[in-house]
Amino acid sequence: MALTLEQISQRFGGEVVGDAALKVAGLAPLDQAQPHQLAFLANPKYLSQVETTQAGAVLIAPGDLAKLASREGRSFIVTPNPYAYFARVAQWFIDLASPKAPAGVHPSAVIDPSAQVAPDAVIGPHVVIEAGAVIGARARIDANVTIGRGTRIGEDSHLYPNVAVYHGCNIGPRAIVHAGAVIGSDGFGFAPDFEGEGEARTGSWVKIPQVGGVAIGADVEIGANTTIDRGAMADTIIEECVKIDNLVQIGHNCKIGAYTVIAGCAGIAGSTTIGRHCMIGGAVGVAGHVTLGDFVIVTAKSGVSKSLLKPGIYTSAFPAVGHAEWNKSAALVRNLDKMRERIKTLEATLAERGDNA
Amino acid sequence: MALTLEQISQRFGGEVVGDAALKVAGLAPLDQAQPHQLAFLANPKYLSQVETTQAGAVLIAPGDLAKLASREGRSFIVTPNPYAYFARVAQWFIDLASPKAPAGVHPSAVIDPSAQVAPDAVIGPHVVIEAGAVIGARARIDANVTIGRGTRIGEDSHLYPNVAVYHGCNIGPRAIVHAGAVIGSDGFGFAPDFEGEGEARTGSWVKIPQVGGVAIGADVEIGANTTIDRGAMADTIIEECVKIDNLVQIGHNCKIGAYTVIAGCAGIAGSTTIGRHCMIGGAVGVAGHVTLGDFVIVTAKSGVSKSLLKPGIYTSAFPAVGHAEWNKSAALVRNLDKMRERIKTLEATLAERGDNA
Amino acid sequence: MALTLEQISQRFGGEVVGDAALKVAGLAPLDQAQPHQLAFLANPKYLSQVETTQAGAVLIAPGDLAKLASREGRSFIVTPNPYAYFARVAQWFIDLASPKAPAGVHPSAVIDPSAQVAPDAVIGPHVVIEAGAVIGARARIDANVTIGRGTRIGEDSHLYPNVAVYHGCNIGPRAIVHAGAVIGSDGFGFAPDFEGEGEARTGSWVKIPQVGGVAIGADVEIGANTTIDRGAMADTIIEECVKIDNLVQIGHNCKIGAYTVIAGCAGIAGSTTIGRHCMIGGAVGVAGHVTLGDFVIVTAKSGVSKSLLKPGIYTSAFPAVGHAEWNKSAALVRNLDKMRERIKTLEATLAERGDNA
Repeated sequence: MALTLEQISQRFGGEVVGDAALKVAGLAPLDQAQPHQLAFLANPKYLSQVETTQAGAVLIAPGDLAKLASREGRSFIVTPNPYAYFARVAQWFIDLASPKAPAGVHPSAVIDPSAQVAPDAVIGPHVVIEAGAVIGARARIDANVTIGRGTRIGEDSHLYPNVAVYHGCNIGPRAIVHAGAVIGSDGFGFAPDFEGEGEARTGSWVKIPQVGGVAIGADVEIGANTTIDRGAMADTIIEECVKIDNLVQIGHNCKIGAYTVIAGCAGIAGSTTIGRHCMIGGAVGVAGHVTLGDFVIVTAKSGVSKSLLKPGIYTSAFPAVGHAEWNKSAALVRNLDKMRERIKTLEATLAERGDNA
Repeated sequence: MALTLEQISQRFGGEVVGDAALKVAGLAPLDQAQPHQLAFLANPKYLSQVETTQAGAVLIAPGDLAKLASREGRSFIVTPNPYAYFARVAQWFIDLASPKAPAGVHPSAVIDPSAQVAPDAVIGPHVVIEAGAVIGARARIDANVTIGRGTRIGEDSHLYPNVAVYHGCNIGPRAIVHAGAVIGSDGFGFAPDFEGEGEARTGSWVKIPQVGGVAIGADVEIGANTTIDRGAMADTIIEECVKIDNLVQIGHNCKIGAYTVIAGCAGIAGSTTIGRHCMIGGAVGVAGHVTLGDFVIVTAKSGVSKSLLKPGIYTSAFPAVGHAEWNKSAALVRNLDKMRERIKTLEATLAERGDNA
Repeated sequence: MALTLEQISQRFGGEVVGDAALKVAGLAPLDQAQPHQLAFLANPKYLSQVETTQAGAVLIAPGDLAKLASREGRSFIVTPNPYAYFARVAQWFIDLASPKAPAGVHPSAVIDPSAQVAPDAVIGPHVVIEAGAVIGARARIDANVTIGRGTRIGEDSHLYPNVAVYHGCNIGPRAIVHAGAVIGSDGFGFAPDFEGEGEARTGSWVKIPQVGGVAIGADVEIGANTTIDRGAMADTIIEECVKIDNLVQIGHNCKIGAYTVIAGCAGIAGSTTIGRHCMIGGAVGVAGHVTLGDFVIVTAKSGVSKSLLKPGIYTSAFPAVGHAEWNKSAALVRNLDKMRERIKTLEATLAERGDNA
């Protein structure tokens, strides 16, 4: 499977400099690429590698091309964003090379007669699709996935094995949902119904019904074993082009703004709004009922307990250091009030002596 | 589907004030409710909304009813806990409106002949129930769930899709287990069997067999993709009315006391006992082999490394602040010992000068 | 089911002292064991329990046996590591007592004709095995597991229910993979393709294809609902005898060295290398693109943001204390720069006065 630079540029744009009929059969980094491969210069500091690479052709930004000492024997596709261009071309090669699952419903799948499955969708073995669900064109639903009643899966979406989408949810087009993800589980809400205090307390927690759904926009990717709870009354909302990594928890009635990325092991408690274009680091925790503005970045392992409305980078994590050193610092932190008292005493003594001088 | 206030109060208690024959068809917040809906006053600060609401009837506490300027044209159900009452009525409306899955075993389910499944249980497609398992009356086992050999699922329990319960576990009545949860996986225990030090170390980790089970009391709810390990020798124990959110890890031989709630992404290491009526915040970590007393509250993102026996609120998390500001504080924390030395020097100098004065 | 001490020592080594024909029917701790049971002394501080135990025989280290006041009426298996020996014997008893699943493929499983399944493997109900996959001898694949195309599962491995292994992965012999684990999901990588700043920003995230696999060595155990992402170009690597607990996230292109153990809820970001014989505590987060050397220990809840090359124990977690006390310390931490300024002022004043004296 090989493609000419012309074919590639016709599909993804960019200008061919050099031999438009040159064929490439795949992509590789500059320092590993062979003459039948397409390389890319994503970071200008590797410009010198473009001079020495074995690659048949290179994806390059116009400014970087201009800096090259020699273009001898090499062809280029010039594009303002070679890294994104690389990603698109690489995906195309993969799509061309991957075996196509035949459209249709595997005989072991259990599809309610009232569900609508597009004829060109691919429904894998042991899939369960409940009443009134709608599966869009070219959607691919892998083995052992369960789609609840009335849930809609957008066209060109791909749900990997063992995904569970509860009833009444809506997933937009081109979604990628990785294995084991759960969408639409009940939010965590209970009304206390207790009497008495302390050990004499009796009663129970009464479950608050969760009757909202989950509304997920276009081009969203959701990681393996991530969980997104349904809303209590209104929907939990994930806007378009949000990217969520593995093992992330999104509580009920959260709203995650478009283009926001959330790294693995993060948890967003209920009724919290995260703006557009945010970056939430790995293992970050965000409290419930707070708001993060657009373009907020929270670094890994930090905890957010209050609203952060202004764009910017926010942090609350310490980096690990030697255990003994850490313990010493931690003990001092616990006794900071004593240190402050000693400073106060010093100040008072000095002031007194100054007065007396 | 509409119910009279009388029907509701006959089922859940409370006193009707006004028109007991008034029909309501659902619930809504005070500020959104329509005349055919039942609203509720959970927080006295919204008392004025009771005067202006369009709701046909309002759930209200006796003390708040007494404070109302006018009850004109409105009916009430008077109950000491309107929020819990709301939750119960809302659940009833949902139950009435939801399609009932027919009792019985889906033909694609694989049930061992020695398993006992109550005739009114609902066993979904592709469910697997192994030898000797017992499924209680009216239990609902959703698609792709696996129940291990000898495991018992209590009456009226609901296991959502893709739940796995290993062999030899016991889940009490009225449990709700959300999709992807795993109950009874092996605890994390290995005996080191190594010789030599440093790079010369050879040997391996030897798995400690985990032969206890998991014993879960009545009215427990377990969140999506949460994991509860089986005990090493004795059982891991989850007492009645414990509520566990999504992506929570409970280690082997933990005991979680009744009515305790554990928020998402928390992790409880092995052999730890948590008391009754505790509240464990999101992403909290509790070390192994410690004890938390009854009524202990640990705030989100905190880490517990020692036993906390007294009731109270415990914390160890910093809230995120601007990145530069945080880095400055963090650097000072790392150098607190130097700050302490400077204070010591100041004190010594001052003492010396005082002596000399 | 009972075994003589001789049978046990023939299988696992060690020297029998006392009655080699004595039969034991199981294992128990020293203080609970009965005459038909085998106990073990793992910790010398319980030596006195060996004198009083009811156990028929005791696993003991040679040095501890020598310290015993009396061996009267008791038999021993002498071994340098009684705890590891106990684990092995206990596993043998379990294997002898457990019902054996018959070899073969359950009729409800869906196996691609091009997949190779060893005739003595056990393939459970509703399992899906895609084209070209290879299942090794005596492997046990439980209900609802999905194995992607071309993936290889080593001999004697056990995959519990609902595990998903994507295409092109390789799991070594004797692996144990607990329920709901996901192996080979896409790494979290996107190229930004945006133009404009702030609210005028337009564009999207472009997915970087993830074409590496996951290569897992021999004797690895992977916990329930843990996720291990496939590499972007090269493989994600888990070396032999790595033990990973539940709900752990391993990012793309990580390399985890042999014998390392990773406790529950930990997260390792992409392209990070962790050495051999490391211990990563519960809920630890490790940033991407860093290296941990061999024999590094990171305590629970800590965050690692830079490489830690030297063996040793590293920490960054504070233990929870009373909420009010914590808040006081936290406020002082935020104002440490002011404290430092006050010390500076004191030092300057004192220096000035000293000069003037």
